[in-house]
Amino acid sequence: MTDLFERHRSLLDGALHALSTRGHWSPFPEAPSPKVYGETAQAEGQAAVQALTGRDYPLRQPGERGRVATERSPYGVDLGIRYPECDAQSLVDAARAAEPAWQALGPRGRTGVLLEALQRIHRRSFEIAHAVMLTTGQGTMMAFQAGGPHAQDRALEAIAVAWKAMADVPEQAVWEKPQGKNPPVVLNKRFEVVGRGVALVIGCATFPTWNTYPGLFAALATGNPVIVKPHPHAVLPAALSVSVLRDVLTEQGMDPNLVTLAVSAGTQLAQDLATHPAVASIDFTGGNAFGRWLQAHAPQARLYAEMAGVNLVVIESTDAYAGMLRNLALSLSLYSGQMCTTTQNLLVPAAGIDTDQGHKSFEQVGADLAAAIDQLLAEPKVAFTVLGALGSPQTVERVEQAAGVGRTVRASHRLVHPDYPLAEVRTPALRALDVDDAAIYEQECFGPVSYLVAVPSALAARDLVERSVRAHGAMTLGLYSTDAAFVDHMVAAARRAKVALSINLTQGVMVNQSAGFSDLHATGGNPAANASYTTLAFVADRFVVVQRRW
Amino acid sequence: MTDLFERHRSLLDGALHALSTRGHWSPFPEAPSPKVYGETAQAEGQAAVQALTGRDYPLRQPGERGRVATERSPYGVDLGIRYPECDAQSLVDAARAAEPAWQALGPRGRTGVLLEALQRIHRRSFEIAHAVMLTTGQGTMMAFQAGGPHAQDRALEAIAVAWKAMADVPEQAVWEKPQGKNPPVVLNKRFEVVGRGVALVIGCATFPTWNTYPGLFAALATGNPVIVKPHPHAVLPAALSVSVLRDVLTEQGMDPNLVTLAVSAGTQLAQDLATHPAVASIDFTGGNAFGRWLQAHAPQARLYAEMAGVNLVVIESTDAYAGMLRNLALSLSLYSGQMCTTTQNLLVPAAGIDTDQGHKSFEQVGADLAAAIDQLLAEPKVAFTVLGALGSPQTVERVEQAAGVGRTVRASHRLVHPDYPLAEVRTPALRALDVDDAAIYEQECFGPVSYLVAVPSALAARDLVERSVRAHGAMTLGLYSTDAAFVDHMVAAARRAKVALSINLTQGVMVNQSAGFSDLHATGGNPAANASYTTLAFVADRFVVVQRRW
Repeated sequence: MTDLFERHRSLLDGALHALSTRGHWSPFPEAPSPKVYGETAQAEGQAAVQALTGRDYPLRQPGERGRVATERSPYGVDLGIRYPECDAQSLVDAARAAEPAWQALGPRGRTGVLLEALQRIHRRSFEIAHAVMLTTGQGTMMAFQAGGPHAQDRALEAIAVAWKAMADVPEQAVWEKPQGKNPPVVLNKRFEVVGRGVALVIGCATFPTWNTYPGLFAALATGNPVIVKPHPHAVLPAALSVSVLRDVLTEQGMDPNLVTLAVSAGTQLAQDLATHPAVASIDFTGGNAFGRWLQAHAPQARLYAEMAGVNLVVIESTDAYAGMLRNLALSLSLYSGQMCTTTQNLLVPAAGIDTDQGHKSFEQVGADLAAAIDQLLAEPKVAFTVLGALGSPQTVERVEQAAGVGRTVRASHRLVHPDYPLAEVRTPALRALDVDDAAIYEQECFGPVSYLVAVPSALAARDLVERSVRAHGAMTLGLYSTDAAFVDHMVAAARRAKVALSINLTQGVMVNQSAGFSDLHATGGNPAANASYTTLAFVADRFVVVQRRW
Repeated sequence: MTDLFERHRSLLDGALHALSTRGHWSPFPEAPSPKVYGETAQAEGQAAVQALTGRDYPLRQPGERGRVATERSPYGVDLGIRYPECDAQSLVDAARAAEPAWQALGPRGRTGVLLEALQRIHRRSFEIAHAVMLTTGQGTMMAFQAGGPHAQDRALEAIAVAWKAMADVPEQAVWEKPQGKNPPVVLNKRFEVVGRGVALVIGCATFPTWNTYPGLFAALATGNPVIVKPHPHAVLPAALSVSVLRDVLTEQGMDPNLVTLAVSAGTQLAQDLATHPAVASIDFTGGNAFGRWLQAHAPQARLYAEMAGVNLVVIESTDAYAGMLRNLALSLSLYSGQMCTTTQNLLVPAAGIDTDQGHKSFEQVGADLAAAIDQLLAEPKVAFTVLGALGSPQTVERVEQAAGVGRTVRASHRLVHPDYPLAEVRTPALRALDVDDAAIYEQECFGPVSYLVAVPSALAARDLVERSVRAHGAMTLGLYSTDAAFVDHMVAAARRAKVALSINLTQGVMVNQSAGFSDLHATGGNPAANASYTTLAFVADRFVVVQRRW
């Protein structure tokens, strides 16, 4: 195994260095360029996915009870890929059987295997990207970037942070206690990293690799077998990733059942797995209902959960009005607001704001933001790339219901995708609300619906933010302000409410984007998530150190 | 504050170095020698405790409802120290009010204050040791070592590991993403360590400093206010420690209510505090009943718990029979078996064992161990120092009931302490059981009662160990064997059951002793404890990192 570790050592070292400085770094190029990935890579990736449709997915696992096709593409493509549906107990048994040999590899051996698998996942970026696009409704560019290189960044980050945590206790020691004139008492000591047990990683329908890889690779690196339970609508990206891992394990003479795929249309399988006494950790990305169920019913497992939140932006003033509007327009439009980091509530003083283009009334800010969205989406090719398709009928329903809420700032429109006529493509809805409409805007409305909330003052916005984040959680908080004192107020509020703050983003980076090796995804300190990609806390409790001395 | 950090920097660096090698290191001398601590130190410490008895303890805290004297010395000394009994909500409010300024100090400032406080605690080692002795029943030597320097080692260890975890994310970064021929996108980033919230540290009756300091100092270092809830029978050692912390905070212009003492005779106060929504973490050392109550009723808080366990030693063979017996005799006698690390079950093959003194039957091993205990305790001065006194009437009752269990190997005797005639001093009871008596030996019997269990074979002992540790937990596991293959079997079993293993200890170190900076106390991976002194996992989730970027 050592050769795999040595082969990828520079990749690991690069990640460790990047994490220590948190500057820009990505070993996996984010541009889906033929120059980088090869002239035929994209076509081959799409063809590879095409070849899987309408058949049994090539995966043999213990306890197979039958085959099940659970995916429903937001683009209206009939995938019809039949996955094995396996018995929960069989998956757990197989995981436990695979554990000792994986354990015995040690941190170095495991890290080598995982880095090799990650490199192979990287080489299949276009295939996985196409699977992400078809299953989630993401546009092609986001599916490639977030589903491919950026997800791989997060995987590498998890491996590297796990490596750091495991390396914190030395493998061995000699303890020599002086005894005055007598010879010292000498003890030899050995410290072993031992995984806590079977890990369950439950994926979401929107980011089936980006939100799955951190838990998957962190759990594996620290010595645990993993059962991956993807969302029934977005199985293929996880299945491909699991298959790569199983291939590498098999090549290395390991039991591939260290990593298995649990597919089922309903929730029973996830519940059976989550409550199994041998399951020691659960990584979960999804809604509050199932998240709370897990908290209540799976007390034997440590839960790392990312759930619903209500993200906010406070617009107090700006010296880059046009840039702010362009930035917000793209932020709200990206993947039709179906990112857990997309802003839902834009808090604007009812009296309007000062800008480099003069004072703008509340209404004017709304009208200008609506116009900026119109402008962004004017070119259809851009619109389809940016918006993607709505992932579920529930999201379509929420957009339609939003039309009756508050005052219209920008109505959502349906667009017909030239290549995928069945796809539900909707432009963002902007609704204006009063500060008293908290019953509306303090509920998560997942999808392309945002509220422009008229607040009495900037300080009232700050107070609202703090209260809202504490009560409902948030992955992101944005601020536009030229007032240093107000920025300080917001910094303090963000610290108290434990939410990441992005200040005066006007170009290049949107509030809903987070970069591996630099940005922490969620703080883990408000109701939207109890863990963070990727802190030591995300990895350090996935293993224990078992010591012996003699 | 910086000067405090600089003043103690070498102490911190020493701890960090020791943790990285896990060799022998202790900055706090364990010998209660007048040469080290001064000729008058012991007498002054005892006088200081004496001066506190029968009065109001000098501590003023918010929400005081009255004074309460809850201690009952196992030595029969009437302490009568009256502590403030405070309202739970007032303590929480005061903690929260003190939090922002503590937070604002940052890791460096907080670490400096805590190291200063720890040095002052160290200077009061004799006073604290005497308080530990009187309240717990420990003998003088253990009260000094475990209550003083060794507890201080664990405190420093917690501070140092917290420092490492907090330093893992840099305080700031500049993120520069190249944009081809265009200027790069540049973001400035700032990362702040923010404590999770009010920490509750619940102490035990036997080691009121050693088991309290790790949670106390880890929580403080990572930015959290702490409410210390000592066991009602062992308040003074915690009170003295809290007072030192409050003194140093006050001197530094900080709010002393960052650390408060919660004393009450019943459990209501602990329950009110534990279930308070603002309480984010609970460190608990104590019995299973309250531990399970906390798990069930305080889901809002992260629980770090050390509870009951059943510790075992497997005696397969030895090439140092006399040394083994001496080691076991001292191990079982230390503080009358009232350590969470004391062996309860000694598993010996029914057919006996091979030793350097020839084959010894099961009965002979028992008789020889009994004789070794007799010999150890023959000198009364040694006996009283080693045994201390029984901490509670329940322990006395358990010893007396044990006389009716299994076959007598060594009967417990009552000794009359020359200085403390009311003290319950009992020598260890050794009972012989058959392997079928699991209903008896798989229950924790806290105190000076151990079982010599006749097992069919060494491998049966290994299986019993693994099953027992998984089911009932264990802090320690010992092994005596000259058979390398059997040692390997036991190493594997210990790894699977996630328990620390001590092999062939025959001198100097007992299975129930663990050294700061080298030995991990508990693995955190079996039912006896879910956390370990001191891994990254013990500290890393006590804070979140709140990021901002602009």
